[in-house]
Amino acid sequence: MRLEYPLILINFKSYREASGKKALELARTAQKVSRDTGLTIAVAPQLTDLHFVAANVEIPVFSQHVDDVSPGSYTGHVTLEAVKDAGAIGTMINHSERRVRADQVDVIVKRARELSLVTVVCTNTPEVTAAMAALGPDIVAIEPPELIGTGIPVSKAKPEVVTSSVELVRRINPAVKVLCGAGITTGEDVAAALRLGTVGVLLASGVVKAKDWEKAIRELVEPILKRA
Amino acid sequence: MRLEYPLILINFKSYREASGKKALELARTAQKVSRDTGLTIAVAPQLTDLHFVAANVEIPVFSQHVDDVSPGSYTGHVTLEAVKDAGAIGTMINHSERRVRADQVDVIVKRARELSLVTVVCTNTPEVTAAMAALGPDIVAIEPPELIGTGIPVSKAKPEVVTSSVELVRRINPAVKVLCGAGITTGEDVAAALRLGTVGVLLASGVVKAKDWEKAIRELVEPILKRA
Amino acid sequence: MRLEYPLILINFKSYREASGKKALELARTAQKVSRDTGLTIAVAPQLTDLHFVAANVEIPVFSQHVDDVSPGSYTGHVTLEAVKDAGAIGTMINHSERRVRADQVDVIVKRARELSLVTVVCTNTPEVTAAMAALGPDIVAIEPPELIGTGIPVSKAKPEVVTSSVELVRRINPAVKVLCGAGITTGEDVAAALRLGTVGVLLASGVVKAKDWEKAIRELVEPILKRA
Amino acid sequence: MRLEYPLILINFKSYREASGKKALELARTAQKVSRDTGLTIAVAPQLTDLHFVAANVEIPVFSQHVDDVSPGSYTGHVTLEAVKDAGAIGTMINHSERRVRADQVDVIVKRARELSLVTVVCTNTPEVTAAMAALGPDIVAIEPPELIGTGIPVSKAKPEVVTSSVELVRRINPAVKVLCGAGITTGEDVAAALRLGTVGVLLASGVVKAKDWEKAIRELVEPILKRA
Repeated sequence: MRLEYPLILINFKSYREASGKKALELARTAQKVSRDTGLTIAVAPQLTDLHFVAANVEIPVFSQHVDDVSPGSYTGHVTLEAVKDAGAIGTMINHSERRVRADQVDVIVKRARELSLVTVVCTNTPEVTAAMAALGPDIVAIEPPELIGTGIPVSKAKPEVVTSSVELVRRINPAVKVLCGAGITTGEDVAAALRLGTVGVLLASGVVKAKDWEKAIRELVEPILKRA
Repeated sequence: MRLEYPLILINFKSYREASGKKALELARTAQKVSRDTGLTIAVAPQLTDLHFVAANVEIPVFSQHVDDVSPGSYTGHVTLEAVKDAGAIGTMINHSERRVRADQVDVIVKRARELSLVTVVCTNTPEVTAAMAALGPDIVAIEPPELIGTGIPVSKAKPEVVTSSVELVRRINPAVKVLCGAGITTGEDVAAALRLGTVGVLLASGVVKAKDWEKAIRELVEPILKRA
Repeated sequence: MRLEYPLILINFKSYREASGKKALELARTAQKVSRDTGLTIAVAPQLTDLHFVAANVEIPVFSQHVDDVSPGSYTGHVTLEAVKDAGAIGTMINHSERRVRADQVDVIVKRARELSLVTVVCTNTPEVTAAMAALGPDIVAIEPPELIGTGIPVSKAKPEVVTSSVELVRRINPAVKVLCGAGITTGEDVAAALRLGTVGVLLASGVVKAKDWEKAIRELVEPILKRA
Repeated sequence: MRLEYPLILINFKSYREASGKKALELARTAQKVSRDTGLTIAVAPQLTDLHFVAANVEIPVFSQHVDDVSPGSYTGHVTLEAVKDAGAIGTMINHSERRVRADQVDVIVKRARELSLVTVVCTNTPEVTAAMAALGPDIVAIEPPELIGTGIPVSKAKPEVVTSSVELVRRINPAVKVLCGAGITTGEDVAAALRLGTVGVLLASGVVKAKDWEKAIRELVEPILKRA
């Protein structure tokens, strides 16, 4: 599956609102809006729901995390092969809530490439974004942790964090794409993220905690549709 | 779901032989033998396959690991609620390949009890078995790590580790059941484990790596059937 | 060095008030009060100051933490042998700010015994205290983390946590001694801890953050002197 | 203290040969050769010996590790302030035996700069070297872990790892200096490391495990002296 941009990536975190059967329900809602609008909307369900969700939708599905081990005697670990076998197209790594070490990101990015899996490496500062870009993942997602879950978008609170991240990535490894995360809840936030030079957004509570999932996702993608 | 003993618990680890669709295939094979024999055979598939497998079999399904966090902003973590929503009846924790801290076992055991989830806490020495029993899980599974994957059963190599574990658990917390792990591959190993005072076995490669899963599982349970 | 009870153990944490040369100053102040009163007052300076402090005082010195590795290729780790070579008489482990796993406590306790080093294992709940006692350390120090640094002593806020810990330890491993920590700042707190069946206290900010160290320590030990 | 190059940095790891009083003995031997030759020879003793050694020698002393926390309630942690108060001029971080996360390296490098402490960030591959250079430490030390302790110098076994690391660092952050580690035991290895564009070497067992420390260090620096 080839990933098209702009990309809206919805992280289900470990919210119970999107756990078990509701994970599939949310994924199918995202799929409905994606089909109606032609835009790429991807989901990252909880680890336990990964195969269950990926087996039942056709939009891109990501793992929220992966370990740096190959298949084998690794009870309780998540391998890239398991992610692939589950039907996901790739994986997030290094989210602020689940950081891994740089040498592990290096191993995971290299192995993911061999397995044709997409890597989305989360970062917190322009310097860390630059560092992670040097490891050559497909996507880096810059998310100042202090804004996560606040509803205050990074594009408003700290646009310079995004623009300097975009610049550093262009200089160090222009093949790497940049997503913008933290505090995203409205379509205007998404439009602002794209204006700052990113290819899309990573968000969680803005959708998962919304009362009406379809409405929340439609509002997110509207400004992109108008732009197109 | 009430768990009946003796219990055979098959840990899929992160073996690729039992990943993705093959996870369900192995779980269904276990289910077939369980139905034919009336014995409890439970499975612990990889995290990513948990919901997918649990949604499609009726034998007890366990998670291989769980984190000590409640549902919320915990990207890449496994909550007890996610395990429950996935349809599993409980979880392993503290496997030698994925140790957690004692205070985390304490939190997980207490929260699992509230959620009516079964906890299987892995241990390595009689002293650690005693310590984990003091935390009040449903089951402790003693597995000397140096024997894991060797095919040399602990019941032969170190029977005193099992018997002293059983004794310590009886003294400290007699409500806790003891499983025996590491090196189990034959029905004779299972029978020996039961003779040493345990309620069953935890095993992995002995089944997962077998060429003929059904044959391997049948051979495991045969001595128990004869005993009954 | 044989440890005598009651024991006052002052943890310097990583407070800058007791770092570098000031670590030795605080240790010498503790030594002065100890000599004047005949009571055992021990100190746990920061890792970096361990040898420097232990080489210059004669009161018992503890490490704040130790890793479960033997001397060798372990850059940045603290071995029991290094603790001993530094002149300390033992080590704290599993502090709420630096938890280790139960299997690591098991290894450390066993190795410390061989090296004649004293182990003080910190715990948070009666259940974890029971679990750690099962591993056979010299001392367990029960400290409800929510009270650490509050100035509200556990003996007042949650005396039942201390008494049930003392009872469980007596039942599981009566050779293990119990220290009481969290929120200790006054001599009355120390007296209360002893009345609840512990052999002394573990404290930090109550002394380290005091303007007059000597006065703070004298006030702590006064009720014990009267009792004697 | 200003650091002069070339630099020989001797990591004592947790070898017992260089623990306690012997740590100071080895540091004084390094100091003697440094004074005789005018070359910069720095030492990284065990954490517990840091203050003790730094207080008694005048050559540059490094910590083997530091945590990403500020002074405060962090029992068992090593702060940059403690490293400074102990008299060290800086710290190694991210050694293959004690990796930290990229966001932690970022925090530590920025805080160390404010405290005028020198940072030496260890790396394993050219990509990770590039990533760490993007975080702006003073020095990166490339050490292929598979060669550590083998006596096979990276300059012979994998010179391209060193040269491509040097190139990447020049492109991404030319202010960062490169040290070469792993398998260094002879003066010829040191000379080769300098020829490949590095400013010196990081080594451990080659000196610490030598029967005659002074002889081992003299042999290391000899080719540099001839070159000068």
